[in-house]
Amino acid sequence: MKSLVRTALFTFAAAGVAVSAGGAAWSAESLDDVMKRRGLTQKDVLAAAKTYVPTGKRDEFIAFSSGGQSGQVIVYGVPSMRILKYIAVFTPEPWQGYGFDDESKAVLAQGRIHGKDILFGDTHHPAISETGGVYDGQYLFINDKNNPRIAVIDLHDFETKQIVANPVMKSDHGGAFVTPDTEYVIEASQYAAPFENGYVPLSQFNEKYRGAVTYWKFNREKGRIEPENSFTVELPPYSQDLSDFGKGPSDGWSFTNSFCSERYVGGIERGRPPFEAGCSQKDTDFLHMINWRKAAELFKAGKTTKINGHDVITIDTAVKEGVLFLIPEPKSPHGADVSPDGRFIIVSGKLDSHTWVYSFEKIKALIDAQDFADRDPYGIPILDLKKALHTSVQVGLGPLHTQYDSKKCVAYTSIYVDSQVTKWDYCEGKVLDKISIHYNIGHLMTMEGDSVTPQGKYLVSLNKLAIDRFNPVGPLHPQNHQLIDISGDKMELLYDMPLPLGEPHYAVAISADKLKPGIRYKSGWNSRNDERSKYRTRPGKEKVVREGNVVHVYGTTIRSHITPEIIEVEEGDTVSIHLTNLERAEDETHGFAIYGTNVNLSLEPGKTATGTFKADRPGVFPYYCTEFCSALHLEMQGYLLVRPKGMKEAAVEATEGTVYGQADYDKQHKTNLETQAVIDSVVAFITSHNYQDFKPVVALVEDATDQLGFAADARKKAEGFAAKKDWQNATLWAGQWWQYQVKAADIGLRAKTYLEQHGAKKIK
Amino acid sequence: MKSLVRTALFTFAAAGVAVSAGGAAWSAESLDDVMKRRGLTQKDVLAAAKTYVPTGKRDEFIAFSSGGQSGQVIVYGVPSMRILKYIAVFTPEPWQGYGFDDESKAVLAQGRIHGKDILFGDTHHPAISETGGVYDGQYLFINDKNNPRIAVIDLHDFETKQIVANPVMKSDHGGAFVTPDTEYVIEASQYAAPFENGYVPLSQFNEKYRGAVTYWKFNREKGRIEPENSFTVELPPYSQDLSDFGKGPSDGWSFTNSFCSERYVGGIERGRPPFEAGCSQKDTDFLHMINWRKAAELFKAGKTTKINGHDVITIDTAVKEGVLFLIPEPKSPHGADVSPDGRFIIVSGKLDSHTWVYSFEKIKALIDAQDFADRDPYGIPILDLKKALHTSVQVGLGPLHTQYDSKKCVAYTSIYVDSQVTKWDYCEGKVLDKISIHYNIGHLMTMEGDSVTPQGKYLVSLNKLAIDRFNPVGPLHPQNHQLIDISGDKMELLYDMPLPLGEPHYAVAISADKLKPGIRYKSGWNSRNDERSKYRTRPGKEKVVREGNVVHVYGTTIRSHITPEIIEVEEGDTVSIHLTNLERAEDETHGFAIYGTNVNLSLEPGKTATGTFKADRPGVFPYYCTEFCSALHLEMQGYLLVRPKGMKEAAVEATEGTVYGQADYDKQHKTNLETQAVIDSVVAFITSHNYQDFKPVVALVEDATDQLGFAADARKKAEGFAAKKDWQNATLWAGQWWQYQVKAADIGLRAKTYLEQHGAKKIK
Repeated sequence: MKSLVRTALFTFAAAGVAVSAGGAAWSAESLDDVMKRRGLTQKDVLAAAKTYVPTGKRDEFIAFSSGGQSGQVIVYGVPSMRILKYIAVFTPEPWQGYGFDDESKAVLAQGRIHGKDILFGDTHHPAISETGGVYDGQYLFINDKNNPRIAVIDLHDFETKQIVANPVMKSDHGGAFVTPDTEYVIEASQYAAPFENGYVPLSQFNEKYRGAVTYWKFNREKGRIEPENSFTVELPPYSQDLSDFGKGPSDGWSFTNSFCSERYVGGIERGRPPFEAGCSQKDTDFLHMINWRKAAELFKAGKTTKINGHDVITIDTAVKEGVLFLIPEPKSPHGADVSPDGRFIIVSGKLDSHTWVYSFEKIKALIDAQDFADRDPYGIPILDLKKALHTSVQVGLGPLHTQYDSKKCVAYTSIYVDSQVTKWDYCEGKVLDKISIHYNIGHLMTMEGDSVTPQGKYLVSLNKLAIDRFNPVGPLHPQNHQLIDISGDKMELLYDMPLPLGEPHYAVAISADKLKPGIRYKSGWNSRNDERSKYRTRPGKEKVVREGNVVHVYGTTIRSHITPEIIEVEEGDTVSIHLTNLERAEDETHGFAIYGTNVNLSLEPGKTATGTFKADRPGVFPYYCTEFCSALHLEMQGYLLVRPKGMKEAAVEATEGTVYGQADYDKQHKTNLETQAVIDSVVAFITSHNYQDFKPVVALVEDATDQLGFAADARKKAEGFAAKKDWQNATLWAGQWWQYQVKAADIGLRAKTYLEQHGAKKIK
Repeated sequence: MKSLVRTALFTFAAAGVAVSAGGAAWSAESLDDVMKRRGLTQKDVLAAAKTYVPTGKRDEFIAFSSGGQSGQVIVYGVPSMRILKYIAVFTPEPWQGYGFDDESKAVLAQGRIHGKDILFGDTHHPAISETGGVYDGQYLFINDKNNPRIAVIDLHDFETKQIVANPVMKSDHGGAFVTPDTEYVIEASQYAAPFENGYVPLSQFNEKYRGAVTYWKFNREKGRIEPENSFTVELPPYSQDLSDFGKGPSDGWSFTNSFCSERYVGGIERGRPPFEAGCSQKDTDFLHMINWRKAAELFKAGKTTKINGHDVITIDTAVKEGVLFLIPEPKSPHGADVSPDGRFIIVSGKLDSHTWVYSFEKIKALIDAQDFADRDPYGIPILDLKKALHTSVQVGLGPLHTQYDSKKCVAYTSIYVDSQVTKWDYCEGKVLDKISIHYNIGHLMTMEGDSVTPQGKYLVSLNKLAIDRFNPVGPLHPQNHQLIDISGDKMELLYDMPLPLGEPHYAVAISADKLKPGIRYKSGWNSRNDERSKYRTRPGKEKVVREGNVVHVYGTTIRSHITPEIIEVEEGDTVSIHLTNLERAEDETHGFAIYGTNVNLSLEPGKTATGTFKADRPGVFPYYCTEFCSALHLEMQGYLLVRPKGMKEAAVEATEGTVYGQADYDKQHKTNLETQAVIDSVVAFITSHNYQDFKPVVALVEDATDQLGFAADARKKAEGFAAKKDWQNATLWAGQWWQYQVKAADIGLRAKTYLEQHGAKKIK
């Protein structure tokens, strides 16, 4: 029996079978065999080779996609099209602890609408921060269409740091887009509504309902929007749509679409034609052009009206001061896209088959000359389309959105009704190529394709319908993002990517090497306000502090225990558990969840997070680590005990479940010494090679050294108790010593394998 | 100007540039070029070819993975490893309307713990329903470890239908697993706790804290668990872990691991060694073996004790009646895996390097002969390990979980500490192959690998750490599911898949052709209780019904309007908006969200869903469709108006934003006739080909025919108003007529493209 049950760390090193490593003989099946078996064409294999990213290799670009009604942001790699992360933004998400720890609840609370929690968002348009019009990879902004809000995500840790709710809008759409140096983030309204929060009948739609654009001031040093330094420009009730900022020659200006400049109010239930009929009647809508730099000066000069405590530049002021202009644009547009050199603005109307290219030079000349064709009912000057247009191109039925290539004058426009992407030349005004997509494309994305330095190479078609593209998963289908190779003259379809959660609206992609995310926090960090947490706890300093009927638990986590392991409170107490993850090793996240409390924390290395709840009934509430962190993960547990209110309890000595004697101790001690011999052999292997040339191995060695330090501490305790013949404690601490050895061995073996597979060399 | 702005549906058909279709010339770049450029080896290209699924082709297997602390289930395809859907289970998810419509809130409410909403879950082990031990693809079950609950998902629509909360446990782990005919779903506890809900001090751990297994009765016809026909078997406080059901010769039995049979209670904060030391001290733990069929008879015979209103078979009864037995198992096991033929149970201990193969024949003989080695402190018979063991194999350090190949006697075991998968022969007891994974594998999954008919081919390694495998996305890393080819003698790594949300614990994979999900609901369907909704609404029957201060809105959605478009209520009303999606077309989901209310509905074709909220302040609240459903999607909008309490309002005629005359009508009418000519030409193309041989096209033609029917209705209205010289209404309805034409054209063009790309033939 003994031979069967003998735990055998020390025998493993001699185990017989070789591991299939890089150099092993490869499958008998040839590429031709695989193609035949799987019915692949040569074109398929080429597409596979263009998108496949082998283990450990990296994607070239990182895309940030809106998560639509999921309220989140989706991060995926290009060209592999593998989703790397869902970032929780407007919707609570427990894996990230978002909405389940106090720190992130404070972020979500910033997004309350009139004091009410709105626990989802309809995210639309992500924007990456820019420096000089170039993506800098520092921050990401995204809007919520349903409840007009903007969120700020820090790309250092991919966490949502701030949500600002718009003080005057009742929905938004045309955000987020940033100025070339990210001084401002724009948010444009969608469905017109009164700025005031009270009731205004629809009969006063033309008079009291309004659109708007808000310019949110961003403080890059703090990484936060400053609402007090932000302002809004009032607009007519034209259902504003997408926006973009000028750059180069058009820097200082912003452009915002609209789609129901008919100002139609439906009511099909009362016999009126529906909104869709009345909002698509005219052949043109209005592109709004705003001199935001001048508007910012008006704001600073106090030429604003306070509405709901927020600074608004009225239409009258904007017109009088010459910051707001209109120009006709094709029917029901979706996208105002400034060219990389800032010379052109491209607009497409979903119900037109042309895309229009405006010359900013011409626009500017008309404005400077005060050469207006007309004024709208609100007195806003309207420019003459013919005088401002550079060209117009018939690109297909239902054109929406345009992005740019690295090649001069080359643009791509999504064609909704035809289910195509059209590649065209906006300088010469001619179509170059078309490709079918599946199906009904909304936005499209080229790499850094709305910056001043588009990267070319790939285009992603954000299709609204997938229909038959994927294995069926019920009536609710995934969306389909199709990857298209744009490096050659002809576009080539490479990959169909299902979107498993949410309907993405828009996406932006950045060169992967511009992102420099961290892998750990400074110890004791509140990641949501980016300050050291006042609840941070150092190892050995764990404590429980009662303040009235609030019990603060200052605890820690480390492989593989939570300190404290037993928490005792009284019925009616409010319990606030602050945990600091003491780990420094990459990817060593611990989780923490307690039965019956709706508390779930995600504790990445260094983070301090807090779960607070009311202990409103007596009982026994197990808690544990929710991230499989180590071999002893399941044993990383504890109990919260809630005593009935006022209960006095005599201290009772518990009987031990298992009693250990000297033989147990001796056996464990012997095992540990043998284990140490194996570890020593692994350490000898590592240190006899040039491991310091391998960054990941250096990190593993540091981690293993930490674990061996802990092992030495536990050994001291074990031998101390043994000296006092306390065999119970001696045996258990010897067990703990062995647990640290197992963790060290785990890490050491990973380091050894890495060195073997990466051609490490023996050193003298 | 006119030529610029003329909407040009009718000119598009003649547009100049050919679409790149299947037969077009392929890229100049050769496979060798791509390999060189991207640094791919031949092995990489082979792996790419083995995993790439071209557009429109399907995956061979569908995997259902736990979503860990995300509380959801992840559905992905094998071998492409593309995630097809996140199914919302324990956590609200707005894209699916889950937790944001009344119907799904009712499901989440079933999962309350002592009346408290617990809005996340720690999902662990999914199980697919079986018939005769074979996966049948009808239902999926999954447990929540943190708040012991089981959820039922119907694979007809991939929606969560039911959540049952365990009445006696305070955490679970060893569920869900099903009997070979899915009569029962097992849920085993994890951390011992008192069955009663009150306070019991830890000093009474051995006496009052208990483990358990609950057998939930599943009614396959209803697709629901029946709590009243379910029962629990009391177990000692041994930290029960994973479970499995017997099959074939072992049918009628269930097996459940445990890992802290030391019954150790930690308390590191008070100087005791931590749980991890005390819970891993003994060389063996206990495998629990329960004769569940006999236990079910005891339950039916009333030999139970009612605890919290639930039937519990006590340890004493279970021992007396001979349904509960123990046998030693290797230290800290994770997985009790019954072989496909039901003859063996394989158990691995994380802190052992062996996996043990028990012979059920031997176990059964020992039990029948009442040949017991010992009894545990609770009187449960313990079988003699040596007498029951078939073999034991040294597989590596930290073995966890075993799944089976289609090849006889071949099994795969995950090796946590060594970061490997070991392939071995459990009949002969020898290791066959090993492969390194990255890093620290927990569970593994072969195709249908825990059924009686494993399918071989692929294995997925569910790794707990990714560390350096992917582009960095901050301190919180994705997990890494690695796809391994097991078709040959040597295992071959094919693909690294990042998991972007949640930490999956376990996964199961089924042949894709066994799943038959629906694409629409019966009209007016409540998908959560699977009955026709009492709030279903037929087109033209939309209405608003006030019941006291509750306002019921019976509405509909269809491309591209919501009926009603204006909803008027009074401050203080409770508003319940019931929407039925009238669409029949595949993937034509509409969404519905209202500003400031936290209501978000997902309305798949045929579904009726309800959003209820308190109109607690006066104001204007835009609503709209949140799924990009059509070219006029943005115009699919409306307004909720909340009048101040008691406000009386004189009816005011609104001025129209834009006024139309006869010329407008004539122009629109002419456009429509021209548009119709184009549509006719598309229809002629389709009907002149063998379109009825193409199922997707038949569906498109049906949808287009519907749209043209709507167009005819709108035309009748337009021409009726024109006859009365009401040019305003005539023009707007003519516009609506055109909108329906655009929708028909969109669908018709998709059908035409499909026929062209799929080699449809001209018919006579």
